Amino acid sequence: MGKRILVVGGVAGGAGAAVKARRTSEDAEIVVFERTPYVSWANCGLPYYIGGVIPRREELFVVSPRRLASRFNIDVRTRHEVTAIDRARKAISVRDLETGDAQEERYDALVLATGSKPAHPPIPGLDGPAVFTLVSVEDADRLQAFLEERKPGRAVVIGGGFIGLETAEALLERGFSVALVEMMDHLLPPVDREMAEPLAMHLREKGARVLLGEKVAEVAQNGNKAAVRLASGDAVECDFVVSAVGVAPRLNLARQAGLTIGQAGGVVVNDRMQTSDPDIYAAGDICQIRHLVTGKPVRVPLAGPANKQARVAGANAAGGDMRYAGSLGTMVVKVCDLTIAKAGLSEREARDEGIPHYVSYTHSQHHAGYYPGARMMAIKLVVDRFTGRVLGAQIVGGAGVDKRIDVIATAIHARMTVEDLEDLDLSYAPPYSSAKDPANIAGFVAANIHRGEVDAIEPDELEALLEREDVQLVDVRTPAERKAGEIPGARLMPLDQLRELAGELDPHKRTVVYCAVGYRSYLAYKILKQRGFDDMSHLAGGFDAWKMFHGKPQII
Amino acid sequence: MGKRILVVGGVAGGAGAAVKARRTSEDAEIVVFERTPYVSWANCGLPYYIGGVIPRREELFVVSPRRLASRFNIDVRTRHEVTAIDRARKAISVRDLETGDAQEERYDALVLATGSKPAHPPIPGLDGPAVFTLVSVEDADRLQAFLEERKPGRAVVIGGGFIGLETAEALLERGFSVALVEMMDHLLPPVDREMAEPLAMHLREKGARVLLGEKVAEVAQNGNKAAVRLASGDAVECDFVVSAVGVAPRLNLARQAGLTIGQAGGVVVNDRMQTSDPDIYAAGDICQIRHLVTGKPVRVPLAGPANKQARVAGANAAGGDMRYAGSLGTMVVKVCDLTIAKAGLSEREARDEGIPHYVSYTHSQHHAGYYPGARMMAIKLVVDRFTGRVLGAQIVGGAGVDKRIDVIATAIHARMTVEDLEDLDLSYAPPYSSAKDPANIAGFVAANIHRGEVDAIEPDELEALLEREDVQLVDVRTPAERKAGEIPGARLMPLDQLRELAGELDPHKRTVVYCAVGYRSYLAYKILKQRGFDDMSHLAGGFDAWKMFHGKPQII
Repeated sequence: MGKRILVVGGVAGGAGAAVKARRTSEDAEIVVFERTPYVSWANCGLPYYIGGVIPRREELFVVSPRRLASRFNIDVRTRHEVTAIDRARKAISVRDLETGDAQEERYDALVLATGSKPAHPPIPGLDGPAVFTLVSVEDADRLQAFLEERKPGRAVVIGGGFIGLETAEALLERGFSVALVEMMDHLLPPVDREMAEPLAMHLREKGARVLLGEKVAEVAQNGNKAAVRLASGDAVECDFVVSAVGVAPRLNLARQAGLTIGQAGGVVVNDRMQTSDPDIYAAGDICQIRHLVTGKPVRVPLAGPANKQARVAGANAAGGDMRYAGSLGTMVVKVCDLTIAKAGLSEREARDEGIPHYVSYTHSQHHAGYYPGARMMAIKLVVDRFTGRVLGAQIVGGAGVDKRIDVIATAIHARMTVEDLEDLDLSYAPPYSSAKDPANIAGFVAANIHRGEVDAIEPDELEALLEREDVQLVDVRTPAERKAGEIPGARLMPLDQLRELAGELDPHKRTVVYCAVGYRSYLAYKILKQRGFDDMSHLAGGFDAWKMFHGKPQII
Repeated sequence: MGKRILVVGGVAGGAGAAVKARRTSEDAEIVVFERTPYVSWANCGLPYYIGGVIPRREELFVVSPRRLASRFNIDVRTRHEVTAIDRARKAISVRDLETGDAQEERYDALVLATGSKPAHPPIPGLDGPAVFTLVSVEDADRLQAFLEERKPGRAVVIGGGFIGLETAEALLERGFSVALVEMMDHLLPPVDREMAEPLAMHLREKGARVLLGEKVAEVAQNGNKAAVRLASGDAVECDFVVSAVGVAPRLNLARQAGLTIGQAGGVVVNDRMQTSDPDIYAAGDICQIRHLVTGKPVRVPLAGPANKQARVAGANAAGGDMRYAGSLGTMVVKVCDLTIAKAGLSEREARDEGIPHYVSYTHSQHHAGYYPGARMMAIKLVVDRFTGRVLGAQIVGGAGVDKRIDVIATAIHARMTVEDLEDLDLSYAPPYSSAKDPANIAGFVAANIHRGEVDAIEPDELEALLEREDVQLVDVRTPAERKAGEIPGARLMPLDQLRELAGELDPHKRTVVYCAVGYRSYLAYKILKQRGFDDMSHLAGGFDAWKMFHGKPQII
């Protein structure tokens, strides 16, 4: 008989670790303990099930306990809760939630994959009967039953992160009136504010109310009616509330066992996913792992990293030797017709880390403009000021966003610079891209800044500059484009006439040129710079980026 | 006055070089000479224009000569042919094709971007009136006029490369009867045969005749009727023929000037895109550049590399200092509902290069299986046997192919190994991918081979082995799956019963296990290996890959 491997938790991390352990060792005894009745189900599918995109509940279940038994010879015990770990005796205490019986199970290796639970901030009324969360099958069942029985019409979603956004989309698709309340000043807090502005605008276009910078003070309930009272004094009336204020790792077992919990709030593991006890491995949301840009420990409660960690933990628990590299926190969310994605550091995170950096903004079509159906995307790069290394990327747009974030995530993983991005030989045919892919163009623009070929000013810097100084601000768009808005105080000099009109400008005055997305202003910069303008910048990302900063993005 | 920069050719390479030269030097004099009436038009858009996907001809023109003049202060001379270069005097001879006048133009820097012309193999009748090519606007105009005036019904496309495939698609979409004739034994010769099999099958499903391994002997014409006679003796009757047998670089000017032409058949350039004459730069199809995997010179007549080279040539011609890294030959083609893509080396190319390598096959859904609309893709990796470095990738499937080829192209550029592919932190949400992205899964499978965790046999190796030896061949699929076909001589032992049935097998006999795509056979390999089977392999890519080798792929 081989090793006895016990796994706590039967979803992404646990089920993944168990099957990898089996592939590594055919003679190990492998037992999975899962608190709920369900294993290996599609966590990320819940909002789509609620929205009706995934029509049948059974589609949420990826691998059945029966399949885990027959194919992998894994003993799966659902409705079994692990209540304690005795590290000295290498045993766990397990309670059968059906019978109430408790027993002890000995292990040679233990894998902890207890995952996350919904965060419960101390908001009065958040435990009321018309308040739902959406992180488990039971949650989805409860919400689905409520929706079908009570036929409510008005929803408030609290929290503008992944689950909140996907739930808002789901409820909109199902025809509900939806209000989304976010405490921060922008949706999807991991991305920078201006990159998230299109999200709020898009959700509003789709009919949602989006309340930003609003703290929820109380959820009041009166019979079938509910109201979300905001700290600002307003109240949003509704029929039910989905609380998506975030998730917290289930650390009670790890804490009880005395495993080291780190500064990032997760179980400390090495690159073999071994905890401070070498016989105990961990995988998924409870771990803190290495951030591939900063090298620092972070928690990344996402399915991709959880699955990779599970493979490593399972292999090593069964006597293998695999390593987990770490994560870039790569993420993508679909919100109706918009996609937003991020990899690596945001500008705020780079600033918080104290890494000298600059950013670039580009706006590109997702495939050849002459091929029908091209959609715009905005790409923001965060770049190491000294080395040109790409530290992070954020993309928002109508299509092709997931592709470019994955290309740039791969580049970040490989520690590529913006000049490497320029060089990437990416696939091109008109239905898929342009001869200069949006990822290349992001590289071109950032590398131009890096090589000192152009001085770019970011929208927030320009705003501060305009308040502080008398700036010669030149709009090089056409008169027609200017009708859609302008930066106050800008003088119109369409690019195609700039060579003739440049004489009207003072070459020794602080000058900023801008256009729609930053390409023509770059050309204008080159024209004026070479005519002796000695204190000049162009606006990174153009008027589109300016609008994103001012809450009026036009991405799609 | 700055430098005088002359550019020969006004499409991707030439126009791109000219505008980059302007951005680099505001005071240079820049003149573009273009033989045709058109500059900066969408080469890659022609098949879509013929197919009606791009409805209006004017959409093919990206930047007008007027715009090049007004915005970039570039002097564009269309219908001007450059007939000779006098390097000693730094001058070119130019003929005005309208007036016939010849003149001489002096240069400080010259950029050659003369591009490609259709190849003209010595096939009798290929210059007949019902034979068309599709590499220029004039070609498209001629074909379009023919189609509208003569309302033909039956087309033969000669050549199964990019243009041939896209033209076949276009003609099918326009309702023609289409026969596609390819001399090689498979379509899209740069990819390996088995990866191209789904293309032929798909085109046949769409109603095309696909004739492989057929050489065209003659194009016969009789009034309004034509016939393509094959060397095999058959003839295909039709109303018109599109010859897409490849393109050849226009090297006459470079040759006349005595510039060094290299072994790959292109103008030799350094990484600044400088030819053997330091005052003459080149960009696009005529150049031979560095292959990023082999380091050897290659010609890559594709738009992506041309545009990047143009930027470098233009900047340097104007006094800048940029470098071109090289190319992976990354490509993608849409053929009706199928996409096929390649980056880096094919298996055949790796073999021809003498690089010890292995391959892996994986079949994955392009996004979460439980989210509606998931399509399959097959990924083939070619891997350096010693280092695990990814040498190349080929992907064919229904959706998401362009994304994965770009991710893997980025990985190849960064010299990543298959273990790095395992680690890539790619974006996941159900509409975009799975928690284990197809690129990760390709990495998992290849890395398992690399680490010696499994011995994989490739379909062609298995075929040879079965002819040579008495092999214990085990099919671990279900009885239901087996109805769709099997490898002759295989014994059925469904994976879920394998642990019980293994005793019926001889552990000391050469054993090969297979399933549908290679995952269950990998599990079976692990089960049997650990039971003492000492001479065992599993079939890479499973029965799906086997079928691809035997011309019956089931990708979509």
